Amino acid sequence: MFYLLDIIGTMAFALSGALTAMNKKLDPFGVFIIAFVTAVGGGTLRDIMIGRTPVGWMRDLNYVYFIIAGYFIAIIFRKKLDRLRTSLFLFDTIGLGVFTLIGLEKGLDTNLHPIICIALGTMTACFGGVTRDILCNEIPVIFRREIYATICIIGGILFFILKRWNLDNDILYLITSCVMIAIRLMAVKFKWYLPALNQK
Amino acid sequence: MFYLLDIIGTMAFALSGALTAMNKKLDPFGVFIIAFVTAVGGGTLRDIMIGRTPVGWMRDLNYVYFIIAGYFIAIIFRKKLDRLRTSLFLFDTIGLGVFTLIGLEKGLDTNLHPIICIALGTMTACFGGVTRDILCNEIPVIFRREIYATICIIGGILFFILKRWNLDNDILYLITSCVMIAIRLMAVKFKWYLPALNQK
Amino acid sequence: MFYLLDIIGTMAFALSGALTAMNKKLDPFGVFIIAFVTAVGGGTLRDIMIGRTPVGWMRDLNYVYFIIAGYFIAIIFRKKLDRLRTSLFLFDTIGLGVFTLIGLEKGLDTNLHPIICIALGTMTACFGGVTRDILCNEIPVIFRREIYATICIIGGILFFILKRWNLDNDILYLITSCVMIAIRLMAVKFKWYLPALNQK
Repeated sequence: MFYLLDIIGTMAFALSGALTAMNKKLDPFGVFIIAFVTAVGGGTLRDIMIGRTPVGWMRDLNYVYFIIAGYFIAIIFRKKLDRLRTSLFLFDTIGLGVFTLIGLEKGLDTNLHPIICIALGTMTACFGGVTRDILCNEIPVIFRREIYATICIIGGILFFILKRWNLDNDILYLITSCVMIAIRLMAVKFKWYLPALNQK
Repeated sequence: MFYLLDIIGTMAFALSGALTAMNKKLDPFGVFIIAFVTAVGGGTLRDIMIGRTPVGWMRDLNYVYFIIAGYFIAIIFRKKLDRLRTSLFLFDTIGLGVFTLIGLEKGLDTNLHPIICIALGTMTACFGGVTRDILCNEIPVIFRREIYATICIIGGILFFILKRWNLDNDILYLITSCVMIAIRLMAVKFKWYLPALNQK
Repeated sequence: MFYLLDIIGTMAFALSGALTAMNKKLDPFGVFIIAFVTAVGGGTLRDIMIGRTPVGWMRDLNYVYFIIAGYFIAIIFRKKLDRLRTSLFLFDTIGLGVFTLIGLEKGLDTNLHPIICIALGTMTACFGGVTRDILCNEIPVIFRREIYATICIIGGILFFILKRWNLDNDILYLITSCVMIAIRLMAVKFKWYLPALNQK
């Protein structure tokens, strides 16, 4: 179940990367790389930093296959994807929740401090999008507008609070990801955002 | 022989990085870093991802020396390099072929799946140029115009098809790299390129 | 003492990152990430390349705490920091010296060649700022104007020359970092800079 959500999240991230790249008028290879990097970038950085090499997607080809599938879906349906915007957003939000949990888990497996685990969870969920924006020569969108990473951090803190209560792992995952998804949906509906900080 | 070609490719990549950086009016240190990163960036990312650390160029100083040589050649002959454009392009194409093969080999050494090996080969050949373009604040050129990475992928597929026939390694390398070099030369001569994908 | 200087340098780098990000009108999370990356980026890249994982800041939470402190100082005093420009510059310069020494040390611990150690020292001191500029969508400032990295290289060479004389480690560190700090101060006072290289 968790693995299935992970795959759905990966595909959703690949789709979002492919769409961004097509808006930049990149060629098919460029679009593929951006899709790939958006999908696996966060997990790759996390694995490299904690020393889990070869990195995750090199050891489980399912990720590669589903990214390729996401890529072709993006290309074939590119003129109709506007109508699917809501479904895409939902998948992306699922990805956000699942990727954060995976990052938290890997941090715990490596015996890292909760603060570092939360950093790893946030990195897993956000860094793919950051790399996508850097490759497309933009200031990463999550630094500017959406409360995206903030949700990962809140999810991470909630995870460790609930963990103290010795909840069953499945329930722990379920609650944390549902809360994160709910906050994201509300954030977009009610247009919550962080104000820009500037010096003057 | 193979090692010699690797060194030539490294130097050619360093030269290409230095030229790009000089066009951006960077200072001598900036030019050096861009030259270095263009030359070793792809191999470094590959080594980090599969866990071969310290990364390659830290263990064989010849790469460092030849990059330094390439850097000084670029600076000294910078006003004449336009006339050497054809030789530079040839060296760069040799680099493309050799770097792809090295990436494939390292993937096989790490017992990774052929698809991942092809990804590693492409990464080794392309990522240096991608980093060069990111540091110079451009959308990477290989995402936009040239069929560069596509050649790496074709080379990688050919490599695994030929490998099934139990060819001698030297012949396998020779055929694969010659085919890649030939495709690149034809691609430039006949102006083959991938069309931009866009949403509308 | 050395550890204390390292912490001061980390905080100074975090401050400098936060200020750059606030000038780009990023949101509070974006500012935090840029502060974090500026502070630990160089050491992280170094650790990844030589295979010291999990990377440094994941194993010593003091870095994280002081970066968070630097972040809040930057936000709270953001309207007054212009007046503290001199102190900030001094801290940043201390960071430059200390980070270079740490990079050199880690290289020696890994039994790498002096040239590679100097590269690691330079990387540790400079790469945080490079990442900050890439994330803010600028060509890295150290490639364009300041003689920053050049000072790291000079410091590295001096370090290995002095090391041959079998000096006590503390004295070796003290001399090297003082020379680097002195060069930086003079470079800014007397406006030393490297000329742009360009092709025409």
